[in-house]
Amino acid sequence: MTTERLIYLPLGGAGEIGMNAYVYGYGAPGKERLILVDIGVAFPDMDSTPGVDLIFADISWLEERRDRLEAVFITHAHEDHVGAIGHLFERLGGPKVYARAFTANIARGKLAEYGIGDNAVTVANAWPDQIKAGPFNISFLPISHSIPESSALVIDSPEGRVIHTGDFKLDTDPVVGDPFDEDLWREVSAPGVRALVCDSTNVFTTYPGRSEVIVGPEITKLVNQSTGMFVATTFASNVARVSTLAHAGQAAGRSICLLGRAMRRMIEASIKTGVLSDFPTVVSPEDAKNIPRENLMLIVTGSQGERRAASASLSRGKHLGIELKEGDTFLFSSKTIPGNEKEVIRIINNFSEIGVDVVDDTSGLYHVSGHANGPDLERMHDIVNPQIVVPMHGEHRHLRQHTKLAEQKRRKGVLAVNGTMVSLSGNAPEVVDYVETGRTYLDGSVQVGALDGVIRDRIRMALNGHVTVTVVLDEQDEPLGDPWCDLMGLPELGRSHAPLRDVLEEDLGQFLNRAGPATLTDDDKIEESLRRIVRQSSQNEIGKKPEVTVVVSRLT
Amino acid sequence: MTTERLIYLPLGGAGEIGMNAYVYGYGAPGKERLILVDIGVAFPDMDSTPGVDLIFADISWLEERRDRLEAVFITHAHEDHVGAIGHLFERLGGPKVYARAFTANIARGKLAEYGIGDNAVTVANAWPDQIKAGPFNISFLPISHSIPESSALVIDSPEGRVIHTGDFKLDTDPVVGDPFDEDLWREVSAPGVRALVCDSTNVFTTYPGRSEVIVGPEITKLVNQSTGMFVATTFASNVARVSTLAHAGQAAGRSICLLGRAMRRMIEASIKTGVLSDFPTVVSPEDAKNIPRENLMLIVTGSQGERRAASASLSRGKHLGIELKEGDTFLFSSKTIPGNEKEVIRIINNFSEIGVDVVDDTSGLYHVSGHANGPDLERMHDIVNPQIVVPMHGEHRHLRQHTKLAEQKRRKGVLAVNGTMVSLSGNAPEVVDYVETGRTYLDGSVQVGALDGVIRDRIRMALNGHVTVTVVLDEQDEPLGDPWCDLMGLPELGRSHAPLRDVLEEDLGQFLNRAGPATLTDDDKIEESLRRIVRQSSQNEIGKKPEVTVVVSRLT
Repeated sequence: MTTERLIYLPLGGAGEIGMNAYVYGYGAPGKERLILVDIGVAFPDMDSTPGVDLIFADISWLEERRDRLEAVFITHAHEDHVGAIGHLFERLGGPKVYARAFTANIARGKLAEYGIGDNAVTVANAWPDQIKAGPFNISFLPISHSIPESSALVIDSPEGRVIHTGDFKLDTDPVVGDPFDEDLWREVSAPGVRALVCDSTNVFTTYPGRSEVIVGPEITKLVNQSTGMFVATTFASNVARVSTLAHAGQAAGRSICLLGRAMRRMIEASIKTGVLSDFPTVVSPEDAKNIPRENLMLIVTGSQGERRAASASLSRGKHLGIELKEGDTFLFSSKTIPGNEKEVIRIINNFSEIGVDVVDDTSGLYHVSGHANGPDLERMHDIVNPQIVVPMHGEHRHLRQHTKLAEQKRRKGVLAVNGTMVSLSGNAPEVVDYVETGRTYLDGSVQVGALDGVIRDRIRMALNGHVTVTVVLDEQDEPLGDPWCDLMGLPELGRSHAPLRDVLEEDLGQFLNRAGPATLTDDDKIEESLRRIVRQSSQNEIGKKPEVTVVVSRLT
Repeated sequence: MTTERLIYLPLGGAGEIGMNAYVYGYGAPGKERLILVDIGVAFPDMDSTPGVDLIFADISWLEERRDRLEAVFITHAHEDHVGAIGHLFERLGGPKVYARAFTANIARGKLAEYGIGDNAVTVANAWPDQIKAGPFNISFLPISHSIPESSALVIDSPEGRVIHTGDFKLDTDPVVGDPFDEDLWREVSAPGVRALVCDSTNVFTTYPGRSEVIVGPEITKLVNQSTGMFVATTFASNVARVSTLAHAGQAAGRSICLLGRAMRRMIEASIKTGVLSDFPTVVSPEDAKNIPRENLMLIVTGSQGERRAASASLSRGKHLGIELKEGDTFLFSSKTIPGNEKEVIRIINNFSEIGVDVVDDTSGLYHVSGHANGPDLERMHDIVNPQIVVPMHGEHRHLRQHTKLAEQKRRKGVLAVNGTMVSLSGNAPEVVDYVETGRTYLDGSVQVGALDGVIRDRIRMALNGHVTVTVVLDEQDEPLGDPWCDLMGLPELGRSHAPLRDVLEEDLGQFLNRAGPATLTDDDKIEESLRRIVRQSSQNEIGKKPEVTVVVSRLT
């Protein structure tokens, strides 16, 4: 048995908040039987991933070993945990997928987009039921978060028990989903836990987390003070908050209307799978138009300022026939994720122009996080009392801080970022390998590697503009007429006040007229020379060097 | 006299925080003599202005009336107030420019880049000295901010006195620059003030502003706790903070080294103009390398995560031979401006990988704002007691909130965004005109209008990629060989697993083979058809529609 080992290998999620994908394995080195926990997405931005639709962990390592993959387990239905299941299912060889009922419903929706049937996902029961997957026995252990049926995974192997927390907070009244049951967690941990693989999102927050249940009454107060229409936004997938908001609006005597496809889909799935039984009756946007504004509350998508979502749309004017007016109130019941500030602020300014009063969570009354704070993490360490703490679900700074937190209490911690294969077999964690990892982009309908250069070229065109140069050469390799240029994303006039296009064509023409056969018979030489001239002349004229495509046409 | 009027017209700064440019005028409508207060820049981002270097207010309105422009007054030397003086000086007809000595030094540096001599800027003394500019008498009234010699402007006209605050806080111990002198301000306001045109930046902050002087001792404490090298970053132009940091480091017994050209330039200008007399002696980066790290403190540029600044450079490895190590401390003595979070966080994660401990201002001890908070604004209203409050230096939400603040105390407020011409002549402010305004981009060495389409095309290429299609037609308008495609920023393979390029060329070739003379003799028709085919085929293959340049070459 000494040759077998228990390994942990994050492919995504340990080095960023997003695109979670954690591999566990057990067996002889290089022959471990594997499971994958979660398969999520991250979201692109204009800075580094313009035009990209979604980002996944690069799963090439696992794809190459898919014959050893026993199953995929999904802890909960947030996009950063389940979002890539449809896109990557076939590449993983169509593995068995396990999730609890609500999560399974969402996962099946994503697989259906690829024509994959519902039976691809097996609905799992919660602890104490176990699922056998090769050398592992796995159980879904309920934990409080912000979406129904969030679960930790209890992963039993011949080397002992690992608890993978998934996303969690310690909330005994989470409004939606299972309350945190400390006794149950102590019971599960009692036989001894080799490793706790633990959410790190809020490790820097120094006070204990607050319960979802405190938010509702404050929002009801706010709605009662409002004399116009009341609109609230939060993440569509924060089912707990959508429920809190709807109940708060109902308590204030308002009709509730949901705007945004993602939000309606989440609530429908919650109701269908029986995890949300008391959600207030909602009115359709069509009917909402006929309700006096002081009796109406909208709950809408777009809390992160997404341009196409309902919040942004309302801030620009009518959305589905509904229009906000002076005296209405708009609440961000959410935290702005770093990077989204400008878009959120744009919406606030749009509302300011209309005269809508915007309330955000700076007061700390209208939003609580779905993740455990620093003191909660320490409490979790104490409850589970593992030999090893493995921080996950965080950027490097979170993982480092979480490791420190564990080590301050004399636990063994290991800072393992994506691609770090850690053996959990010995008395201390040991890094046994580094695996090549990275990101895969969904770009339109195609998967592109982050290092393929596709996105790099787009960023360059965005920064520098683009010039197409066309040259036609006759059968004697002589230029036929003058070369010409097509500009895109570049100013028309340069320093000499002549059109940039004319200046470039003049400079290129002069070069070609002087060029000898050694150049003119060599496409590569022509291309290189013309590119250089365009970049140098542009630098002189407009102070920047564009990207250049040179097309050499030969009549042969 | 009833036909003459006093007008206020913001061209920049009233609708954003940045690119300040405020016009005042007095005279018969359409014949007012004009002055311009401040001429600043705003900073580009990848989302909306990729490749752009700087953003200015569109000054076309003023340029067309430059024969009526008496002078330009610069309140202080921050980039958003003085940054565009060099770039726009000639377009304004080479106006007289007035500023106090330190500001003049910085302005002259910017003009020198355009070969304009020092005499373009006249050094102004502070209140009670006045400068005559057409119908106006203008005085620089000292006010506390975060850079030396910050000034409000007292603008006297035949219609009475206007006070334009510039950027300010109410700090009686600002470390650098003039302390706030309430008695002086009461004296200046005593004769009656028609309008207070007032900074709105921090209107949403509900507690009174804190003095710069509280920061130093806290930072000294932090430096004393640090066992490795200590590095602090702040805005280069926050001269007060750079001074605070240097003194704090000195008090902790450390040698001070400044990294970053902008910061060294600011400190040199401060010392040269005599506004900063007690700045600690600094060591060069060359010498710093030989100082034991526990005796060294670096003060560096790049607090907003700018990729080329010292902070980012240090986080990636060596900078000027200096390298941070595990156990060093890095302090952000700054606030992250919305939109810069991701870049700042990237630096923090880089430092985390090295093992450098990062401290930021979440504790509120290591940074105070240079702007007046809500209660300070109310205090300023009370001290000046103007007939009208005109909020400026803010986004729409700030201006709206500031207007509300004034109106709550039964003052007249006016929400005037860029382009709104307000008459301040009557008993109440009156909007008399809307002027076309916008943004001008400095793109390389060329000024480009925000609506010229140049940047729009770049954004489209970044989102969609680019295809060049080349077709050669012979003397009989028949295609000579097949059309071909060059792709940039697009994946190589599409849904059919064939190279995208081949698929496109095939589809284009088929079209051209079938095309009749009506198409083939018409360049516009060919171009439109080929563009449509590329976009449609790409949509099928890769799920997105690229930008297309079609080049039709005819042998004639």
